Formats: sequence, structure tokens, C-alpha cells
Amino acid sequence: MRGVIQYGVRDIRVEDRPDPRILTPGDAVVRVVAACVCGSDLWGYRGLRDPGPPHPIGHELIGIVEQVGDAVTVVKPGDFVISPFSFSDGSCQACRHGMTSACDHVAYFGSNDPDGLPVDGAQGERTRIPMAESTLVPVPGPIDDALIPGLLTLSDVMSTGHHAAVSGGVGPDTTVVVVGDGAVGLCAVLAAARLGAPRIIAMSRHADRQQLALAFGATDIVEERGDEGVAAVKALLGGELADVALEAVGTAESMRQALGSVRGGGRIGYVGVPAGGPKLPVGYLFDRNITVGGGMAPARTYIPELLPDVLAGRIDPGRVFDLQIPLEEAAEGYAAMDERRAIKALLWP
Amino acid sequence: MRGVIQYGVRDIRVEDRPDPRILTPGDAVVRVVAACVCGSDLWGYRGLRDPGPPHPIGHELIGIVEQVGDAVTVVKPGDFVISPFSFSDGSCQACRHGMTSACDHVAYFGSNDPDGLPVDGAQGERTRIPMAESTLVPVPGPIDDALIPGLLTLSDVMSTGHHAAVSGGVGPDTTVVVVGDGAVGLCAVLAAARLGAPRIIAMSRHADRQQLALAFGATDIVEERGDEGVAAVKALLGGELADVALEAVGTAESMRQALGSVRGGGRIGYVGVPAGGPKLPVGYLFDRNITVGGGMAPARTYIPELLPDVLAGRIDPGRVFDLQIPLEEAAEGYAAMDERRAIKALLWP
Repeated sequence: MRGVIQYGVRDIRVEDRPDPRILTPGDAVVRVVAACVCGSDLWGYRGLRDPGPPHPIGHELIGIVEQVGDAVTVVKPGDFVISPFSFSDGSCQACRHGMTSACDHVAYFGSNDPDGLPVDGAQGERTRIPMAESTLVPVPGPIDDALIPGLLTLSDVMSTGHHAAVSGGVGPDTTVVVVGDGAVGLCAVLAAARLGAPRIIAMSRHADRQQLALAFGATDIVEERGDEGVAAVKALLGGELADVALEAVGTAESMRQALGSVRGGGRIGYVGVPAGGPKLPVGYLFDRNITVGGGMAPARTYIPELLPDVLAGRIDPGRVFDLQIPLEEAAEGYAAMDERRAIKALLWP
Repeated sequence: MRGVIQYGVRDIRVEDRPDPRILTPGDAVVRVVAACVCGSDLWGYRGLRDPGPPHPIGHELIGIVEQVGDAVTVVKPGDFVISPFSFSDGSCQACRHGMTSACDHVAYFGSNDPDGLPVDGAQGERTRIPMAESTLVPVPGPIDDALIPGLLTLSDVMSTGHHAAVSGGVGPDTTVVVVGDGAVGLCAVLAAARLGAPRIIAMSRHADRQQLALAFGATDIVEERGDEGVAAVKALLGGELADVALEAVGTAESMRQALGSVRGGGRIGYVGVPAGGPKLPVGYLFDRNITVGGGMAPARTYIPELLPDVLAGRIDPGRVFDLQIPLEEAAEGYAAMDERRAIKALLWP
């Protein structure tokens, strides 16, 4: 099969790889229908994080089950499935509380499963899914092709945007500032609107992203950053600050922006992978009584909750894919996102 | 009048001071019935924080209103009142959301009010209370003397323990670890029990505090600290971690203990004044999806909520006062708490 390998900084190649097969009774092998490039893939691509030795990459996919191990009962060959970006056992304490991303046996694409066996990247034609019974979510067919981008976002970005909103306690009584206009930030806007937030201020400097934020339910756009950004938020809110800020970048600067945007007793829902930041100034949190929650999204828990809204067309998070290209052109997907020519790139195997 | 002055590290004196008087229409002058020494007063006493120039000290009191300014309507001379440890305007955004401790005009005992006028310490015979209309809480009389210690705790420690529990999301479905066996930690135990927590593990090495923790509703005591403390928690919870940890110390070590004690997706409610810590390791919070909330308690908001339980004897937080001495002996109160001979010292003017 063909699969994407990250060789190093700005070095993405598509290569022949061995076809995956069932290695444990809990496995499934899935043929990938659509995969995509994540903003977090760009940290290593840009060299902001050590990309390490060459490795298969990608952690978002939807696909068709081809084979299952003897212990797998919830899906069967031919089923259309969404895979969350992390694998979880479904039985540990964190999983039983729905926090599948903090599973005791959490495992990831492009790494090893709890048995030490390698797992392929999601950016490929096929992949083995360990702990398939407690990881994969089947989607009742037939699947309208137009829904594929939206279903694919449930694997990560839409679930992650939703996690920001849930962690921030967004609801019908909360004003919201969203810091970050990448695919996750835009999905956080959509999630906040879905949860009924009456006022959603998206911080964005890019016209195309501003438009999508407005389409997703943002009521206001703020282009300024730093203290000027906070002042602009205040101007929009009649001199007050937001109840909640959703942080979807992962830098010290973006966390500072989020912290400065919320009132005393407010909340931060953060989902930006902390790369080189963010720092949490405890004295400020203490004095302002700001609650900080979030982290890696428990996508496995959220997919069944969000799926009906995608299938029914009530939300269309697939609009974050403004570039759709063949898997063979994966390198262009990375480059386009790196250069901000694309919000998010969908890869067709 | 007589009032307590901190002159420097381990230098507490009781001196003659000018009687306070009404300086603005929003003021009240209160005759102190009982005051006390706070664990946070010890940071400066021990020199762990610069005590600064000589200043009046103390921030917890109950008393009788003697005079009110023209703008004060909620209390009148003769009323028995509880003062929260911070003064708030009751009208800013944070106050309207109940977070009075993050008030835009927050002011403190022993410092200046928003008009720049000095405020006495609570450890004295009388004090001026600025923003009295939105700060003082009247208590319907007559007041049983036996209730005085309990009522006094609402000024700070019981409200603060309650804030830890509320910030940690404690309820009937949560197992709780309480880090810190000072008066606030013990009140956090009591607050967690009041909110219905079925399992409350108090971390304490002192026999007298262990006994009070058990009397307040702790179901278990853990004497170990660090990794051994976490292992002991796990042993008590059948190999699992707590849903919530309440941090009531304010050091990096105690925050680490709290963070290590909760499951993935768990919560920290923290109220320990961060002195030299705690540091928040964002990568760990992110990977474990731990929510951190808390800070300075909005005592003004909590007093009316907790007051009926104290008046009816349903909770007896006044038991944290294991030393009751005349105001003139304030220095001994500090020394006894510093040397851990007392949990908390009540001062009778």
C-alpha cells in the first residue's frame, strides 16, 4: 500500500509500505476513505518540535473495515467507521469517565500499541487499529459522499473544538472569545454556536477564515492581538470581558490572549497542543479565579454525540477542508497549510 | 483602640491606634467581637514573603456595627455582621457573577480602599469597612456565644474551604483527596462532606488534625506524601485515583501532590495562596485533561449560603479554633500557629 512518511523538517514523502494485517484479536484493519493533515502535524514539519527519525504520520481518518480480530464485535468487514485520533481501552478509570484521551493504555497512530506493536499512520491507504472494539465508531450507511469531509472532522478537529467549548463551560449564558483561527479554532466557534453561546468573538486576521468563522456562528471578528485585542473585545462587550475564552493554538502568546480576554471567575477551555508553551501564571489565575480546563479531546466519547448533527446536516464542520488532494500529493497539503494557503488539507487515498 | 501591627518577621505587637471613623458615605465602623490569625498571615511572619513596612494586620472578623455612612442601608448600628476578608463593590462584572474576590475595586484589610484611604487590620478593636453596603453580611440575632467561632470562619477559612470544593466540582459522585491539614484544608473536608462526597481522603501527619478531619467527615487519612502518598490513595480507592483533589497549601509540592492524586479528566480545586509556587505543568494537565480551578474565595457570595448551616448547627467549622486568647496576646497566636501548636488562633478584643 501507499503511505505518508515524515522524513524530517519539511520532508514529507509518499512511499510503498507493507499492507497492515491483524496482529492481535482486538485489531481491525481499515481501508482509508479519507485522511487529512492536522495543525499539530506542522509542529514537527516546521522543526518547532524534533520530528525524530522517519516515521509514518497522520492521525485522522474515516474508512471501511476490511478485517477484524476474533475479539472485535462492534464492527465487521464492510462497515463505515470513524477512528478517533487516539486509541483507548474503554475500561480504565479515565475511559469509564469518558476521558478516553487520558486512557491508561492510550496509543496513537504512527507509534506503538500497548503490546509494543507498530501502528501505521492515518495518512495511508490502510491501517491497523488496535483496541478496535473500544475505539472505532461505526456510521450507519449508506454514506452520502458530501458528508465525508464533515465525518472526517469528527476524528479530531470538530471533536477537539467541541472539547474546548465543553471544557470552557460554554452554554446559552456565556459570551465566548475564540483564540486561534485554524481548523480547530473554527470548529470551536461552531461548537460554541451549537451549544447556544449568544456571543462568539473570533480572533482572526485572515479574510477567508473570518468568513468561515462567521458562517460557523461567530457574531464578531477581532483582528487585533495582545492588549489591543483585549480592548477590542471589551469594546464589543460594552466594556466587559468574555465569560469564556477558547484557546486553540498552544503558544504562550495565545494562552495570554485567552487569559486576558475573560472576566474574573471566567473559564479557559484550551485544546492547543502546548508546544513551547503555554505557561500558566498561577498568581494571575488565583487573583482572577480563572478556571483552566481542557487538553487532548476524548474524541471517542464525542463522536457519537456529534455524529447525528453531521449526518442530519445541522452542522457542517467539513467546510474547514479548503484543499482536497490525492494522498500522493500529501507534501503539497503540508506546504499549503504551512504557508497558510489552506486551512486544512483532505487527502484522498 | 488597640490593634495588632506586624513590624517584621516574627515581630507582632499590639499597640494603641486611632479609632476608625466614617470617611466616605459607603463606610461602616464595626466593633470587632472576634478576629483570628490566618495561615496566609504566616507567610510574612515567617519571612517567606517580604512583610514590608510595619502595618496593621488581620483580615477575618465578626462584629457589631457602630456607625454607618449615609449610603449604607443594609446594616445599621447594633447589627451583628460578618465581614468577608475582602471588600467588593457588588456591581462590577465579576461581582455580578458572584466572584466578589475578583471585584474590579477589590480592597483588603490593612491596605487602602479604592479611594486611597487606609483601612485598619481586622485584628483590632474596631475597623472601618469600605463598600460596606456590598460587603457586610448581617446575622439575625440574638447570637448564641457558642456560635461565634463558627460564624467567624465564614469570614475566610470555611468560605475558602467551600470554594476549593465548589471549584473542584465536588458532589455526591466524586471521590476527594484533600491536600493540606491546616484550618482551610480541614474546612475543605467539611465542605466536601457537606456537598455529599462519599469518600474524602485527608492527607495529614498530625494526630490532632487527623481527628478533626475525621470529625469533619473525612473517611480516610493518608500520612504519606509524594509518590508514596499517591500510592496510599490508590490503595484506598481500589487501585484508582480520586476524581477531585482540593489543594489548600499553596506550594509547588502540594500542587504536585494534588495533581498526582487525580484521575485523567479529574479536577483540582485550589485555594492555597500561591507563595513561591505552585507551578502548573501544562503538558501534564493537557495529557491528563485535568481541570484546575480556584483562587481567592468569593466569601461575600458564600456567607449567605453557608450561614444557615452554621446557625442551625448542621456544620461546626468553629472547631478549627483550638486556641482562643485575648487580642493583647496576638503574638502568641502567631507563634502557636507557626510552631504548629495550634491549628488556628481566635483573638478576643
